[in-house]
Amino acid sequence: MTEGAELPGIGLVRQHDLYIDDKNALTLESGVAFGPLNIRYECYGTLNADKSNAVLIVHAFSGDAHAAGYHSSDDRKPGWWDSMIGPGKAFDTDRYFIICSNTLGGCTGTSGPGSINPASGEPYALDFPVITIQDMVETQRILIDHLGIDQLLAIAGGSMGGMQVLEWSIRYPERLRTAIVIASTGRLSAQGIAFNAVGRNAIMSDPHWNGGQYYGKDQIPRQGLSIARMVGHITYLSEESMRVKFGRRLQTRDDFNFDFSDQFQVESYLEYQGDQFVERFDANSYIYLSKAMDYYDFSSRYGTMDSTIDRSTASFLVISYSSDWLFPSYQSKELVYAMMRRGKDVSYTELDSPYGHDAFLLETGRQEIIVSSFLKSAMEGRR
Amino acid sequence: MTEGAELPGIGLVRQHDLYIDDKNALTLESGVAFGPLNIRYECYGTLNADKSNAVLIVHAFSGDAHAAGYHSSDDRKPGWWDSMIGPGKAFDTDRYFIICSNTLGGCTGTSGPGSINPASGEPYALDFPVITIQDMVETQRILIDHLGIDQLLAIAGGSMGGMQVLEWSIRYPERLRTAIVIASTGRLSAQGIAFNAVGRNAIMSDPHWNGGQYYGKDQIPRQGLSIARMVGHITYLSEESMRVKFGRRLQTRDDFNFDFSDQFQVESYLEYQGDQFVERFDANSYIYLSKAMDYYDFSSRYGTMDSTIDRSTASFLVISYSSDWLFPSYQSKELVYAMMRRGKDVSYTELDSPYGHDAFLLETGRQEIIVSSFLKSAMEGRR
Repeated sequence: MTEGAELPGIGLVRQHDLYIDDKNALTLESGVAFGPLNIRYECYGTLNADKSNAVLIVHAFSGDAHAAGYHSSDDRKPGWWDSMIGPGKAFDTDRYFIICSNTLGGCTGTSGPGSINPASGEPYALDFPVITIQDMVETQRILIDHLGIDQLLAIAGGSMGGMQVLEWSIRYPERLRTAIVIASTGRLSAQGIAFNAVGRNAIMSDPHWNGGQYYGKDQIPRQGLSIARMVGHITYLSEESMRVKFGRRLQTRDDFNFDFSDQFQVESYLEYQGDQFVERFDANSYIYLSKAMDYYDFSSRYGTMDSTIDRSTASFLVISYSSDWLFPSYQSKELVYAMMRRGKDVSYTELDSPYGHDAFLLETGRQEIIVSSFLKSAMEGRR
Repeated sequence: MTEGAELPGIGLVRQHDLYIDDKNALTLESGVAFGPLNIRYECYGTLNADKSNAVLIVHAFSGDAHAAGYHSSDDRKPGWWDSMIGPGKAFDTDRYFIICSNTLGGCTGTSGPGSINPASGEPYALDFPVITIQDMVETQRILIDHLGIDQLLAIAGGSMGGMQVLEWSIRYPERLRTAIVIASTGRLSAQGIAFNAVGRNAIMSDPHWNGGQYYGKDQIPRQGLSIARMVGHITYLSEESMRVKFGRRLQTRDDFNFDFSDQFQVESYLEYQGDQFVERFDANSYIYLSKAMDYYDFSSRYGTMDSTIDRSTASFLVISYSSDWLFPSYQSKELVYAMMRRGKDVSYTELDSPYGHDAFLLETGRQEIIVSSFLKSAMEGRR
């Protein structure tokens, strides 16, 4: 079949690997030298002659490099942000060259705890070094260098992706013209850290986790990872969206049977989400990535919030969602006020939505319009 | 030592048991006949001659019959609502006769899954019947009958206790003059059910849970119950109170060590709370009580919300807390509006507090004043 034929949007896409066979491929925030390093990435659209139309998309906690399109004509679903990326969409592949890579520490192609440790010939498991948001950005920087792009038109990400966008803006200010930070924060709240801690505890309490040594074994920490995902899912939805979606309806009957087979729809949904997640995500990656999120604190990256922000030169677009209680609007506003105080160019919108944190994946109608017009103004040199 | 000497408040108190040696002691909502039945309870103060000063206190999910005072002079802590119960306090033991019993299905004296099943001579475990909020109330009704009290001056409870107060008001309207419902709801939201489901999943996934058969074994489902409690604790606190209490401070050092021994204070706190809980609570009780909460829906107890409320004759006091997101104020308001619509005597206060759901245990200053004056007006026949 011809590439892209019959499939909607951007059609068929391919994944690429940048493999750096060097023990010192990456110097981590902790000081540890890490390598070899593999970076899994995808690109959509065409890089223009002066390389001025490149946009880096940074995925959230459970995302991957496959942001748009289909890997095969049999795929049931497109990439995770297909509604935002493609011809005529916000990240318009007729105009922009879009890059998305799997995060360092992840489990879908880029080096992570499930990758082979050359020292042992076995998966790293917990011998994988502890990584940070900064290390994720460093990995992306290596990819952007490899692609020969001096300056990105934009870097955009939601949630954990947004944290990386913020880090880019102060670590390599000269490498991006604009920064798009959606449903994100400069640092997790104590409550956010607490939920991550519950998830890690659930995984580590699962006897099949086995100190992280479960690769290639018959049993993996299914239950622990599933519980972690259930907790995560509750925090991604708003109370209102759960009420509308599930209410207090039972799954399979109208009345209570007075035994533990009685399940509310919301229970069945969460268990299903947990089970599905186990099929596509690695428990150790959950531990490493959640820890990286806990660690990150934009406001103290270069001393104070003000001196941190002073390093940035990008124009910012910040979007938050009214019912997002995991990355609440007040945290976005703190960032935006600080940016304004330091005279940065920043546009901010709080979108009313009942969908909670997940809105950045779902509410693509209004979000698309805002991002589209922001990017266009940047491309036309008005930012 | 003399009873009460040197101990503050109400001093030493004793626990009592009402044991009903009858296979049909209690007919459950499910239709199942249950017995023998034990009810663990405590009483404080003195019942007056015409038995008009009795107040039933109904505890929350993890509470017990020990609501105030000390069991011995060595006790480090008094009962769970000691700040509200005692001489001169809101539930003034110089005026009122206070009764508090452990809930059916609990693990501190009243019959529950850890009690001996006479049919087998072993603990019930999951052979304990599924119970409801209605069954908890029925058990309390048996106790009140036993104490020879026709009509209670008040029934008061927070959280799961408040659900039972609501049920009393419509099931036995003639048995109570006033109903005090604090930080509670007529029914859990989908989000509340979801958090309970995570807790149950964590317990049931623990291999030491063993289908509920762990009594007398070397290993109990410590990890699962601890994780359930961690999740619970997050929901009892507000984001603000966690921020103020813990912020993003690390537990044992100032800087990151880049290994998984790095812990934020909030993580250590939650793990400590989880570990402590395992020492005093039974995992199977967690499952039964959380399921009872999920089931309960006041608004449909007698057809519609209006026809349900029409059955009540009590004067109501309803208190909610502004930062309580597990039993949010809007749920209390729904109840209060319905009570007003049906011409019931109801006082409602939403107290501003940063402490989330736990405020009803902590914010006893203002709560005490409101409850105290409400009870006084009832005792003086003004309600």
